[in-house]
Amino acid sequence: MRYIIGIDGGGTKTIGYLADIHGEILRVSFAGPSNYHSVGVDGTKKNLSLVITKLLDNFHIGIADVSIVSLGLAGIGRQDDEEIIKSLLKELDLDKKSILNSDALTALVGAHGKPEGIITISGTGSISFGMNREKNIVRVGGCGHIIDDEGSGYDIGRMILNSVFKAYDGRKGETFLTNEVLRFLNYQSVDSLIKYTYKELWNKERIAKLAPLALVGAIKGDKTSIEILDKAVESLVLMTETVIRKLNNSVSELCLMGGVFENLDYIREEVIKKITKNNPQIVVKEKLCNGGIGALMLAWKELGINYDVRELKIQMKEVEHVG
Amino acid sequence: MRYIIGIDGGGTKTIGYLADIHGEILRVSFAGPSNYHSVGVDGTKKNLSLVITKLLDNFHIGIADVSIVSLGLAGIGRQDDEEIIKSLLKELDLDKKSILNSDALTALVGAHGKPEGIITISGTGSISFGMNREKNIVRVGGCGHIIDDEGSGYDIGRMILNSVFKAYDGRKGETFLTNEVLRFLNYQSVDSLIKYTYKELWNKERIAKLAPLALVGAIKGDKTSIEILDKAVESLVLMTETVIRKLNNSVSELCLMGGVFENLDYIREEVIKKITKNNPQIVVKEKLCNGGIGALMLAWKELGINYDVRELKIQMKEVEHVG
Repeated sequence: MRYIIGIDGGGTKTIGYLADIHGEILRVSFAGPSNYHSVGVDGTKKNLSLVITKLLDNFHIGIADVSIVSLGLAGIGRQDDEEIIKSLLKELDLDKKSILNSDALTALVGAHGKPEGIITISGTGSISFGMNREKNIVRVGGCGHIIDDEGSGYDIGRMILNSVFKAYDGRKGETFLTNEVLRFLNYQSVDSLIKYTYKELWNKERIAKLAPLALVGAIKGDKTSIEILDKAVESLVLMTETVIRKLNNSVSELCLMGGVFENLDYIREEVIKKITKNNPQIVVKEKLCNGGIGALMLAWKELGINYDVRELKIQMKEVEHVG
Repeated sequence: MRYIIGIDGGGTKTIGYLADIHGEILRVSFAGPSNYHSVGVDGTKKNLSLVITKLLDNFHIGIADVSIVSLGLAGIGRQDDEEIIKSLLKELDLDKKSILNSDALTALVGAHGKPEGIITISGTGSISFGMNREKNIVRVGGCGHIIDDEGSGYDIGRMILNSVFKAYDGRKGETFLTNEVLRFLNYQSVDSLIKYTYKELWNKERIAKLAPLALVGAIKGDKTSIEILDKAVESLVLMTETVIRKLNNSVSELCLMGGVFENLDYIREEVIKKITKNNPQIVVKEKLCNGGIGALMLAWKELGINYDVRELKIQMKEVEHVG
């Protein structure tokens, strides 16, 4: 029982890490998505099994040598989800050695290097998630692209297309975004963007990938672009401040994560400015490790083993380079 | 050649009317949807063919006795759509005797009893559409539920669910809508509404049918409900006033149509109040006939035949009672 496994199972891929019980990462592996809402129970089972097999086989390690499989899975925030995943783990004969959490929790642990802090993620979707020392967990947003995910790439992309159509039919003034979107997608007419929008309703990435155009527009002084970015900022600040408030200001460290914060500087800077102004106790920090490493950290904690976060950050990059 | 046919082909059903060349409606028939974006070219062909066969067979009339088939079809607002439908009509051997328009245009003609006026429709989706005597056509909104359809039942339903989740996670204050939605859908928890929302992404009706709850809430003084209704009003006023402006105030008659205007009095009244205040030349009228009759009117006009709108309204109800 000299090994542990940490898994980050998301809607687009699954990442697994093999580590030892001295706080060292040995290997990384990848498989397809394991959000059972999107790929079903069988798909999830297949990809979890694959990511584990890949970690063990080349090392000639048996699952019997693994003491804990720590999972952070997307789409298990709710009670009945958890039951389904637990019975799936039983079928894989992992139920007795697994720690099951949401991918939001393992992302938080990975980002902060400990099970305490707040993360606000804005990628294709958005969520703010916090946990204090007393293990009180608060989750705000993250209710998906149809009714929520405000301030996410999808939300920004949707606002961009909405503005383009409103400028086109006269409900709003002209926007720089029209030409920008047409050029980016290599489309000839605004009309044809309707087909683009409705072609693959399940594919949120098609809309979300337009988000950076709002930054391009804002830099050139386009009023509509600035309005869109400011609306996203407002949503992300509201989500984050709600988490801060619901944790009774007991948590002071915040990480901003995901493609929107990474690629749209304006949003990152404005969110930080507003949150730290209203909540001077909050310190915004760079993310340390990803959710897969976060899952490992929870396993080590369970075993009472110390880990060096700085060392892990280096190792994470090393194994990814090899893996 | 003593007959004409008028067809209103929508996303949920197709209605056909058989009429004579003296301005009289003889029979109605129904078939499944004929929006080729949703049911494909074959589905559209099948349902158009069916609705015509049903009209003719029981009357022992051959298609050779029909001089014009006038169609108002959903989803053909754009150039390339029209090409596809035209080749479909050719396959049905109807191309030489058909008049093809969008369902918005035939709805306008039916509603106003003539090819002139403005209609603003808010049902599951929303659009404002106008035509003046010079046949200038203006179309605003109607770009679908993902990026537009503002002020529609879907939009209102989406805002309701968004508010319920925001109240639940603390981003917004409590709203009366939470209990109202749970009771209406017979759900036990807000969490479970996530599954409701994402179960059938293509089924907009699931979201749109929640819209009347905002009126219930508003009547009881719920602030969130009133905000939602006011936002819908604002969107519908903007759409309609954009059409008025783009037609250079050359059209003075407006019809408000669809489930939202029919069932949410507050929205109907506020939209009328705001539009007539800003545009004193506008007269809001009750809709006269539906789009299928509108298609007949266009055929009669083509043949130079007069029709009596009041008489048609009575006949429309009579044949529907029989059909």
